Amino acid sequence: MNRYLKIDPWRIIEESFNPDNNRVSESLFSLGNGRMGQRGNFEEHYSGDTLQGTYVAGVYYPDKTKVGWWKVGYPEYFAKVINAPNWIGLDIELNGKPLDLASCKILGFNRILNMKEGYLERNFRVEIYGAGIIEAEVRRFISIADTEAGAIRYSLIPVNFSGTLAVTAYLDGDVRNEDANYNEKFWDEAGRQIKDSRAILVSKTRKLDFQVATGMELKIFRNGIETQLNPIPESRKKYVACKAEIQFNHDDQITIYKYAAVLSSLNHPSDRLMDNAHQVLDRIVTRSFDRLMADQTAAWYEKWEKSDIVISGDDAAQQGIRFNIFQLNQTYSGEDERLNIGPKGFTGEKYGGSTYWDTEAFCLPFYLCSADQKVARSLVVYRYKHLPKAIENAKKLGFTNGAALYPMVTMNGEECHNEWEITFEEIHRNGAIAYAIYNYVRHTDDKKYLADYGLEVLIAISRFWSQRTTWSEPKNQFVILGVTGPNEYENNVNNNWYTNRFAIWTLRYTIESMDIVRDNWPEKYNVLLKKLKFRASETERWERIIQQMYLPYDEKSGLFMQQEGYMDKEQKLVSELDPNERPLNQKWSWDRILRSCFIKQADVIQGMYFFEDEFDDEILAKHFNFYESRTVHESSLSACIHSVMASRIGEQQKAYELYLRTARLDLDDYNDEADQGCHITSMAGTWLSIVEGFGGKRIKNGKLCLNPAIPDKWRSYSFKIRFRGSSLEINVTRDEVRIINRSEKTAEIVLYGKEYSIKGNQEMIRDTVSEPSSLFKG
Amino acid sequence: MNRYLKIDPWRIIEESFNPDNNRVSESLFSLGNGRMGQRGNFEEHYSGDTLQGTYVAGVYYPDKTKVGWWKVGYPEYFAKVINAPNWIGLDIELNGKPLDLASCKILGFNRILNMKEGYLERNFRVEIYGAGIIEAEVRRFISIADTEAGAIRYSLIPVNFSGTLAVTAYLDGDVRNEDANYNEKFWDEAGRQIKDSRAILVSKTRKLDFQVATGMELKIFRNGIETQLNPIPESRKKYVACKAEIQFNHDDQITIYKYAAVLSSLNHPSDRLMDNAHQVLDRIVTRSFDRLMADQTAAWYEKWEKSDIVISGDDAAQQGIRFNIFQLNQTYSGEDERLNIGPKGFTGEKYGGSTYWDTEAFCLPFYLCSADQKVARSLVVYRYKHLPKAIENAKKLGFTNGAALYPMVTMNGEECHNEWEITFEEIHRNGAIAYAIYNYVRHTDDKKYLADYGLEVLIAISRFWSQRTTWSEPKNQFVILGVTGPNEYENNVNNNWYTNRFAIWTLRYTIESMDIVRDNWPEKYNVLLKKLKFRASETERWERIIQQMYLPYDEKSGLFMQQEGYMDKEQKLVSELDPNERPLNQKWSWDRILRSCFIKQADVIQGMYFFEDEFDDEILAKHFNFYESRTVHESSLSACIHSVMASRIGEQQKAYELYLRTARLDLDDYNDEADQGCHITSMAGTWLSIVEGFGGKRIKNGKLCLNPAIPDKWRSYSFKIRFRGSSLEINVTRDEVRIINRSEKTAEIVLYGKEYSIKGNQEMIRDTVSEPSSLFKG
Repeated sequence: MNRYLKIDPWRIIEESFNPDNNRVSESLFSLGNGRMGQRGNFEEHYSGDTLQGTYVAGVYYPDKTKVGWWKVGYPEYFAKVINAPNWIGLDIELNGKPLDLASCKILGFNRILNMKEGYLERNFRVEIYGAGIIEAEVRRFISIADTEAGAIRYSLIPVNFSGTLAVTAYLDGDVRNEDANYNEKFWDEAGRQIKDSRAILVSKTRKLDFQVATGMELKIFRNGIETQLNPIPESRKKYVACKAEIQFNHDDQITIYKYAAVLSSLNHPSDRLMDNAHQVLDRIVTRSFDRLMADQTAAWYEKWEKSDIVISGDDAAQQGIRFNIFQLNQTYSGEDERLNIGPKGFTGEKYGGSTYWDTEAFCLPFYLCSADQKVARSLVVYRYKHLPKAIENAKKLGFTNGAALYPMVTMNGEECHNEWEITFEEIHRNGAIAYAIYNYVRHTDDKKYLADYGLEVLIAISRFWSQRTTWSEPKNQFVILGVTGPNEYENNVNNNWYTNRFAIWTLRYTIESMDIVRDNWPEKYNVLLKKLKFRASETERWERIIQQMYLPYDEKSGLFMQQEGYMDKEQKLVSELDPNERPLNQKWSWDRILRSCFIKQADVIQGMYFFEDEFDDEILAKHFNFYESRTVHESSLSACIHSVMASRIGEQQKAYELYLRTARLDLDDYNDEADQGCHITSMAGTWLSIVEGFGGKRIKNGKLCLNPAIPDKWRSYSFKIRFRGSSLEINVTRDEVRIINRSEKTAEIVLYGKEYSIKGNQEMIRDTVSEPSSLFKG
Repeated sequence: MNRYLKIDPWRIIEESFNPDNNRVSESLFSLGNGRMGQRGNFEEHYSGDTLQGTYVAGVYYPDKTKVGWWKVGYPEYFAKVINAPNWIGLDIELNGKPLDLASCKILGFNRILNMKEGYLERNFRVEIYGAGIIEAEVRRFISIADTEAGAIRYSLIPVNFSGTLAVTAYLDGDVRNEDANYNEKFWDEAGRQIKDSRAILVSKTRKLDFQVATGMELKIFRNGIETQLNPIPESRKKYVACKAEIQFNHDDQITIYKYAAVLSSLNHPSDRLMDNAHQVLDRIVTRSFDRLMADQTAAWYEKWEKSDIVISGDDAAQQGIRFNIFQLNQTYSGEDERLNIGPKGFTGEKYGGSTYWDTEAFCLPFYLCSADQKVARSLVVYRYKHLPKAIENAKKLGFTNGAALYPMVTMNGEECHNEWEITFEEIHRNGAIAYAIYNYVRHTDDKKYLADYGLEVLIAISRFWSQRTTWSEPKNQFVILGVTGPNEYENNVNNNWYTNRFAIWTLRYTIESMDIVRDNWPEKYNVLLKKLKFRASETERWERIIQQMYLPYDEKSGLFMQQEGYMDKEQKLVSELDPNERPLNQKWSWDRILRSCFIKQADVIQGMYFFEDEFDDEILAKHFNFYESRTVHESSLSACIHSVMASRIGEQQKAYELYLRTARLDLDDYNDEADQGCHITSMAGTWLSIVEGFGGKRIKNGKLCLNPAIPDKWRSYSFKIRFRGSSLEINVTRDEVRIINRSEKTAEIVLYGKEYSIKGNQEMIRDTVSEPSSLFKG
């Protein structure tokens, strides 16, 4: 834990410069627009410790697998998000002395992320040894209005000296990933051009030949007047630069603009990249910095309109949730069905691959409620498009008949991960992918999605579950052997309750969905079943599995068991652990973790979260208390779900504590790892702990249900939900719940168990009810 | 499977040259003397595919660990046997044309390993394009009489041309391992000298600074007369060579001798290596090739005297067992307590590290019966010396109070392996190390070993078992959770019967050993217990564990279960497997292997082998039949133990089939992997399947028991056993068993359940009994 940033509702503020925090700040101050991203690196050369990160969505490198001991079925490569050619570089020399924050005297420093308007700002006053004191103000943004554009305004005032300023604006494609299995470079040059103050570098990834064109144009103003530049071009393999010199007197204000364009071969023919980059540059340079900035502000205003959560009375909580929502909006915009949400988004290299089950299990509800329907739809379609590869993946593991196992980690649909206990055994991910279809359909009522895409995926997943299930003679039941559940502190267990429960649910939902499609789109149904060579005996077996699946249960305690044999472990509580032994995954050997009762993240509780309706309050509370007290929350995905469930059972204080932990996980660097990047996918979990936790949002019988409670510390909070065509804003105070329908359409909602209609552009107000859990029964 | 070698009782013969077999041949034709070894590489340059291998015992490289995903407790390095400076190199040019078997026309070729006398021979007749036809005969050996000496005699006859022969004898330290995690070179140069026809190269390993001095001296004879050489020295970093030219007429016989000395800093002060290498060279050059060869023959005669097994009527079986015994004697001589038996000995790089549980579980009985007592003693002392590191290793995994976990793979006592399911969980190895002490003591009656060394190890191991055992509330018994048994096709299982059984046995044997030491060496006992801070409560817990350990058992079948839940698996037999799916570990993904019932190697059966006395014939047979039919024998250590147990239960045909599989595993390259090196440790298993299998050798109540049977195909067989000071030779024919006592001491033996005394240098003859299993009861 390290809280060095200032609390502020709309901004992330670093008030002085500590090089030890630099990598963490670089992560937190990342910018992105769904199509590209950039860590909070300095524009000018910095000789201190830094993780340089420029990322272009969908451009990856298949890095040759590194394992100690190979197993059949391991993937040949791990797809890595790559550090792309640097477009922010802007080196500054004053009277021949370089500006480098690692080697000058810092007299003042602020780094500020303005989340409301989507830009990064830096102000500093430094003494450059051998030159003099300068004041600088730097603003940078990546446009969400014009998604191939970035811009930098770098203003300088030499306070106490005159002389020559040399500016080198460059594009550097000779960059590396820190995370490279064999220390290779991933980029080659495909072309470069340089003329006057404009340069373009086209880079090509090794192996897959993705191409990225990075362009820049440099402009310099002295005291508000544009100076005529006669830049000296510098050009070498993978690098282009424009170097310009201007004379200054002390107190002159020099303002440097660097406009950048980043285009990739995902969106342009490779042979057009250079020309198109010129066009984009023409457009943005013409529009100029201030108007681009105004576009950015307007576009962010619209994002916040749809997704903001306002908390009053608790700025730390407010800042936390805003930071999370800001990052989610920066990472994924839903405009491209080929893209997804990487665990680190555009903020770092760790976990290289792009897509985990996090997307379906944690992120989808945020996008369903906070953006146009097509955004969430893109996420589910993404997996539909990967279906053939998921079938191929299952085939490699010995499955037949079109059974699909979606990969644990993927970029293009192929599995990237290489730990047998995860790659081959953490099969519950298939469940989350089915659940996302269910979630999408029940939220949007877009049942036709089932006919068009969803059912095909569901059948393939159900075929997998069916084949993965074994009949146990001694138990006279079906079992699922050798799995890893969501709690990765258990490996290769038999009958993980969550997994078995999910298999049953998927089979049942697939059968229901078949009925829906057959009844509504009989032709599509017949075509699909024929295409899949579906046999009636398949559903017969599914029905038998649904009826006869073994679910581990401990009679004595009346608890479902995380897996068979869980009670054989020494039963200890997290409260009994020596704090010096935490986090366990950094202190204990793996075998010790595995045979302990300690839980990394929600497992049974994750199942109860998904299938809540099947359990009464008492059962939910009993399981929560038993398992949460054994949970070390050493996954970023743990606290959020536990917070939702703590709210659900009326454990307000616990819910609030867990909320803070998830909301400020990166801002306060709880796990001492924010230097590697932000936990993007768990940020959607933070949103869940407010909207589904405190707000008690559910969907039941096709209706939006709300059961808001309010944490003691808060005066009020509000959140927004888009649901089946209506846009609702829910404001909760200690005394009342006010729901505003901001759309034209009448909204049917259930508040504290009672049904209401709210006409378009109307609102309703009701008293707050303090014990929400009892109300879930209705 | 690939049987291209000729069957011969004393020799391994390759009759023509197929480059595709070259790596396999290089493995099989390896030479060694316990202190150094050499694959069957050619002396002259060979441009075809080859795995060059020169090895010096105890000289290793700590190669930085390579894993995909790091776990706490993983070792920093994997210790690799290293390919050492090449001393055999002898390049030949005739009239400027190099002799290279990859690029000349081969008119005849034989490679022969003479196991009786311990040398490698090669005869060939080739046409060197542009020169002419030559005939060559090459003999090479590594002396077991003078263990720092090697010698080569390379005779050539140019058949149809005259001209100039250029010989380059070299030492090359610029060598690589194929198995290097990061493609590093492991050697630096520490010094070199070259003068006339002698050169010495001192090489130093990176990181650990082992030094190896390799020396050579070259002599050339023409038609039996030594020629005066004026060699041209060649010297560069890590390389020294003497190049000599002589003129020849066709049909001249030119004989080149290359004498080599290999000394290491394990046995010489580093600063004396160069001088000592000169001394060794002086000695061996003076003795000359023929007398060195005579010494070698005599020394091997003595080895065979102690360890030979003679089979008549089955040359394939005879060749197999001789090859196995030959390799065991080449690999380990017991002269140095720092050394051990690597899985590949001196025949390849695979499995780099030197010591596995193979030594204790499979190899020890061979050395106990076939060599002086000190040889086996060195093996047990080796582990005693590693005890402090085994305690440190357990500490890393969270154990306290001097508990020891011996490493899975080690060179110097530190763990080298890095798969959590093996490194941390395959803890049964600790049992084998305790059992080796028991085996050594019961075989030799050297009880004082317990007081001097054994008990300290036993207590440390028992402390580990005690702490590794958990009390299960539901079972009301002790359990051992999260282990991998000998069958590595199951990982992280609970209550592996073998492991639990071994824990009980170790605790009990430790308590017994404490009694023995207390009664016989009370002072030593008290000193030791004080040193270990031993408390009476420790044995109390041990007793409770012995009484209350859970052992998985299936009531329905009346079988001990390999682990808890084994019967939940789909029960299939190996006979039902599609042969195209074999070997499973090359065809099935790991999860599929894990959840199948198929077994890699003896697990329950391995336990029944060790603890045979605790089970009656019916139980042994029932378990053998159940488990063997599910065993794919995909470990080289599987067939041998199953062969012993098949003999035990009277399944003669099965025992014989399994014997052949283990005996000729490498010669016939059953698993298509002999190119990587020979399976040295499983070779001792082959010996077990004859001596303990067909011969029925056991030790009961301190007596040597024999129950010989004879495979149908054999006319007779004989084996040798050294036991408590007597040396017995057991000859078995279809009709009779003849036991010759080749020592002075009277031997007390039990044959077919009846006790006999055989006076020194006497023999006894009894009828063979055809159904041995029933006789084990006595």
